[in-house]
Amino acid sequence: MSSTRDIDSLIDMMARLPGLGPRSARRAVLHLIAKREMKLMPLADMMQTVAATARECARCGNIGTLEICDICTAPKRANGMLCVVESVSDLWAMERSSSYKGRYHVLGGTLSALDQIGPEQLRIPAMIRRIEEEGIEEVILALAATIDGQTTAHYIADQIEGRVRLTSLAQGVPIGGELDYLDDGTISAALSARKDI
Amino acid sequence: MSSTRDIDSLIDMMARLPGLGPRSARRAVLHLIAKREMKLMPLADMMQTVAATARECARCGNIGTLEICDICTAPKRANGMLCVVESVSDLWAMERSSSYKGRYHVLGGTLSALDQIGPEQLRIPAMIRRIEEEGIEEVILALAATIDGQTTAHYIADQIEGRVRLTSLAQGVPIGGELDYLDDGTISAALSARKDI
Repeated sequence: MSSTRDIDSLIDMMARLPGLGPRSARRAVLHLIAKREMKLMPLADMMQTVAATARECARCGNIGTLEICDICTAPKRANGMLCVVESVSDLWAMERSSSYKGRYHVLGGTLSALDQIGPEQLRIPAMIRRIEEEGIEEVILALAATIDGQTTAHYIADQIEGRVRLTSLAQGVPIGGELDYLDDGTISAALSARKDI
Repeated sequence: MSSTRDIDSLIDMMARLPGLGPRSARRAVLHLIAKREMKLMPLADMMQTVAATARECARCGNIGTLEICDICTAPKRANGMLCVVESVSDLWAMERSSSYKGRYHVLGGTLSALDQIGPEQLRIPAMIRRIEEEGIEEVILALAATIDGQTTAHYIADQIEGRVRLTSLAQGVPIGGELDYLDDGTISAALSARKDI
């Protein structure tokens, strides 16, 4: 047994995280070992805490530590609006924009024939129940502009058409985006949705 | 108190690791929470283990779990050669190349007037003791080709000149490197160290 087996395992585990690779994992682990008291031990403790307490909100699917998350229970948020997102990270991205004050519903993925993900594998039935029970008036589909995302949007639209107002995020040129760096699809979408000024 | 305080703290701690930022920290933490049993708990446990067992080799400064590391005690490695590196990550990089079979000495940094790092803050006195005690015949300086690295190399050369053979890593064109992408200093160094073929 090598005497560095545990350190190698730690580097290996870190290297498998999304966004890291072997090089950044080695740097991170050496940094953590060098600052054992200040960094490594608090990080390990916080991981234990989060592992013990993190849970999905039973209503919307957001990650938090309560059965029903802060956003679902916030009294100041609009009850009639439901923003449907693919993932918790998308919900957090919407929240960072501070521009939406309704409720959310996290699908937990997109429909994908290839990966055998149907409506039952997502939170689509729960979403339909919520629309009825919570008296939702508008559903905002904030799904990715990918094939799977748009397939999911079409499926949801079919299911709830006529029952509520159904909208989706506008497509166009990002703020600060330069045309030269945009893909053709975005430019076409921005052109066909052009506005009078 | 926000119900997501612990999760936010964990993201914040991860975001401060070298090589990560807020976005990759969020992705990593959501990934870990989604795979709590398979990823988050083993990672937290392994961090605890490493925090409890990792230590610097008392001889060379490498990170491992033994008082004297595997490289220092390996019977098959050459005793007369000492490769001096700045950091443990540099030692590991040398080892990955599988081209060196002597011993190492990790300085733990480079001399830096700006950061008030002198010879006593590094393992330079320990290195000089080792050269005498271990009968080192060749010291290979594998220090970065930066100003601080080269200052350190000159200082060490002054200290041990005449006592041992002193070498440094060759400078030149990296394997697979294209001239067009190399900086001028590297091209000059490669030109002045050109070899007959």
